[in-house]
Amino acid sequence: MFKFNISGRNFIGYNRSSKGDTTFQAKNPSTGEGLITSYYEATLDEVNQAIELAEKAFTGYREKTGQEKASFLEAIAEELAQLEEGLVGLCVQETGLPEGRLKGELGRTMGQLRLFASVLREGSWVDARIDFAVPDRKPSPRPDIRYMQKSLGPVGIFGASNFPLAFSVAGGDTASALAAGCSIVVKAHPSHPGTSELVAMAINEAAKKSNMPDGIFSMLHGVSNTVGEAIVQHPLIKAIGFTGSFKGGKALYDKAVRRKEPIPVYAEMGSVNPIFILSNALKEQYKTIAKGLSDSVQMGVGQFCTNPGITIVPNINETSLFKEELNNCISNSESATMLSASIQEGYETGLKRLKSNEIITSLSKGEQKEGHNQGVPEILSVSAKDFLSENTLEEEVFGPSTLLVHAQDGEEMLKIAKSLHGHLTATIHGTEEDLQANVDLLKILERKVGRLLINGFPTGVEVCHSMVHGGPFPATTDSRMTSVGTAAITRFTRPICFQNFPDVLLPDELKDGNPLKILRMENGKYMKAD
Amino acid sequence: MFKFNISGRNFIGYNRSSKGDTTFQAKNPSTGEGLITSYYEATLDEVNQAIELAEKAFTGYREKTGQEKASFLEAIAEELAQLEEGLVGLCVQETGLPEGRLKGELGRTMGQLRLFASVLREGSWVDARIDFAVPDRKPSPRPDIRYMQKSLGPVGIFGASNFPLAFSVAGGDTASALAAGCSIVVKAHPSHPGTSELVAMAINEAAKKSNMPDGIFSMLHGVSNTVGEAIVQHPLIKAIGFTGSFKGGKALYDKAVRRKEPIPVYAEMGSVNPIFILSNALKEQYKTIAKGLSDSVQMGVGQFCTNPGITIVPNINETSLFKEELNNCISNSESATMLSASIQEGYETGLKRLKSNEIITSLSKGEQKEGHNQGVPEILSVSAKDFLSENTLEEEVFGPSTLLVHAQDGEEMLKIAKSLHGHLTATIHGTEEDLQANVDLLKILERKVGRLLINGFPTGVEVCHSMVHGGPFPATTDSRMTSVGTAAITRFTRPICFQNFPDVLLPDELKDGNPLKILRMENGKYMKAD
Repeated sequence: MFKFNISGRNFIGYNRSSKGDTTFQAKNPSTGEGLITSYYEATLDEVNQAIELAEKAFTGYREKTGQEKASFLEAIAEELAQLEEGLVGLCVQETGLPEGRLKGELGRTMGQLRLFASVLREGSWVDARIDFAVPDRKPSPRPDIRYMQKSLGPVGIFGASNFPLAFSVAGGDTASALAAGCSIVVKAHPSHPGTSELVAMAINEAAKKSNMPDGIFSMLHGVSNTVGEAIVQHPLIKAIGFTGSFKGGKALYDKAVRRKEPIPVYAEMGSVNPIFILSNALKEQYKTIAKGLSDSVQMGVGQFCTNPGITIVPNINETSLFKEELNNCISNSESATMLSASIQEGYETGLKRLKSNEIITSLSKGEQKEGHNQGVPEILSVSAKDFLSENTLEEEVFGPSTLLVHAQDGEEMLKIAKSLHGHLTATIHGTEEDLQANVDLLKILERKVGRLLINGFPTGVEVCHSMVHGGPFPATTDSRMTSVGTAAITRFTRPICFQNFPDVLLPDELKDGNPLKILRMENGKYMKAD
Repeated sequence: MFKFNISGRNFIGYNRSSKGDTTFQAKNPSTGEGLITSYYEATLDEVNQAIELAEKAFTGYREKTGQEKASFLEAIAEELAQLEEGLVGLCVQETGLPEGRLKGELGRTMGQLRLFASVLREGSWVDARIDFAVPDRKPSPRPDIRYMQKSLGPVGIFGASNFPLAFSVAGGDTASALAAGCSIVVKAHPSHPGTSELVAMAINEAAKKSNMPDGIFSMLHGVSNTVGEAIVQHPLIKAIGFTGSFKGGKALYDKAVRRKEPIPVYAEMGSVNPIFILSNALKEQYKTIAKGLSDSVQMGVGQFCTNPGITIVPNINETSLFKEELNNCISNSESATMLSASIQEGYETGLKRLKSNEIITSLSKGEQKEGHNQGVPEILSVSAKDFLSENTLEEEVFGPSTLLVHAQDGEEMLKIAKSLHGHLTATIHGTEEDLQANVDLLKILERKVGRLLINGFPTGVEVCHSMVHGGPFPATTDSRMTSVGTAAITRFTRPICFQNFPDVLLPDELKDGNPLKILRMENGKYMKAD
């Protein structure tokens, strides 16, 4: 294990830099106190340096083999594992999240890197396609054409506040971009700069040990928007990964599409993840569903992109039993520390805004504990009719609450489903009978989200090959992609085809004889070398 | 074969409509005369009607099986085949293109539809992925998650002027979007409205015979930008396909990204497709290369997106022999009719702009024939130094010309390669020795284009599985995609995942037992049913 001193400086490749005059400190959200280290906001010069170095490093990194990139990702996981104790301790101070949760998140972060490494080792993810030449085709010969995905260029990545490890400096966007073969410049989230610095040290250590070119990874601090905007607007940056608020993500998107050369922005901006509960399921399972919903709403103090912010319930006798059960769960719950004062204020303001509307009533509330930045679980209620007439109720209130929407009948449920904009997930609770009778509802929801669940809860996003953590706008700025799971890698690639190339100049993925033994499409057929 | 009368009306699903007061006529570019039929520019009401009907039809069309969609695409090809004589005859009048070329293009259009149909019949294109549940995983069970690509929604498609069949009403964008499972609203190009109407009739006929829902296809006429802008800005439209000028494509992109819900725009806006000729190749092959270049420049009167607009030559003795040969070819060539007066004027203006710059000299010119809208082949010349100091020389001049750029040495060639913005293609002519010595040049060009060719010419875009007809901005607005070849289908899809779904509610592609026998990724391994 390497020793660490937190320097508060920016990482420009393997070097540290602190040229600016502006510094900031993180706050411990549990105590409200400032933490001791000062962090240097990057200057525009430093931003440019990091990006120019990323461009220089890109040329070499792009040509690394899948095995080399895989070893590098695995080395990052290894370095993170060695940091565990100190890293989790510091992260608890900066985020107020419990140690157990952060240990789990660190495990997820390492597992993610290793899963992506396994995809690189297997190698078929590049979508290799070959159409062999047909020299004697009439009226004109068919040329030899070979296709694969290759990396886009240097990528700008924005760390998220709510997952200080799994969606931050070594998180999903980093794993994806590095796996794709892109160099990266990470803007650390200012609410956990020390955690970010430790993770950056781990990445740099792994990069050195793996003989990676200086500059494939840089990390810049910044509290103001200046650093982030400069990254998005730099002509050498070719894509952006972001997880955070709608306001933040949309602002980056708007800048990126107005560049002289527009670039893709993968902004995952959260959503309210509607849950629809159908009649028979509610009859048979109201206790279990109420308990599950209460747990899901409170998970991570409601600070998950997949937090179920609205729950649509039918109008049957058992609805009141369900509500009673849910209210019991919530009334017996306690507040917990949120990630920062601004997030806690946002939650309170959001609730106040809802409750100031006379169509909304508060059904139950958890216990307000002593302490700073407490987020108190709360259940609100509205009629479907009022919900449909008020188009602001679908806005995310980031925190441990859900709004129960009371539908008179199936028709009103369908109306709500149709009225929804894009979300990350939608969930249906239903018996077999319910589901058969509500295929229309399923089909409508399919068009609104990236992930559709039955009889589950949306919190808990599995990192796997089949995950879609994405969805139509405003959940993300690009519904064609996912930000979790191995399909996220191709966010940072584009296809290139090689026509009439001598074998020796082709990438190994496309050479005759398939030396990497990957799955390829050859003349339209999927083929794998023996 | 069904009989046809050209009505000049818009197609709103299976109905014809002509509510507007504005009409226009096509012109025969060979005679400069107006053709007899009047076409009705669609009103905004008609645009809305077509799109609302497309949305209605989408729900049903999205659920069609791959086999059903394949039969539909094949039926379109069949209807087009039956139209051949009348269609090609009318198209010759509207475009001035020779009959042989248009017969070939019709064959390409039908072949494209059939190739896409074969991909649908095979079925694996949906990228099915399954991670099976692991109920006893610790600390928490792994849910069952299944992933596939599904259609985006109604798509707006803009017909191109330069390929009145293959990139127009039943062209690549149409084949892609219909294959993906999207309903479409096509804006017909006003320079060949009769051709468009005949093709629309063929699509409608095929749709009826295939029992497709009314509204999966509509076609609207328009000369002004109003119709196109209304399509891009309609909230029910979920993606745009476009082939045409930079000005036109970028304007649509700018509107689409400023919508309340931004949508993807696949605008293929052309490029100048640089050709680099290396020393030994020039020494050994100067005659063949000169002849090939002359042919490529003149193909389709230079009205191809892949026309080689700049050619970089080395500074060796044989360069003058090459130029002599090229000048001979061009001097012995003849002008030909361009697609329209405005395209011909654009070509002349572009050439004038170049030649008014004293750094540019004209080396040779073809013979100006009698007749309207003649595009005369021409070779221009500039030094690499001057080329590098003047950043407007990389702009496309749409027509049969190329600008020879004289590089002093390999270093200057690299400088030019580095200075290039995005193009559809780049080509290198080189012997084995040349290529080995110029790997740097290859690597630089790889970042600039979608297709890289060795010892060939970029004109002639093969429709196959491995084609990339795309490239970095400004060649297109989305380098992650291709507009030719079967990989173009996923431009109009997004991934969706299904968590914990009962088998009966899953799409067939994701059901247990793999009933469609497609290739799937199961727990990270590629598997195909026996």
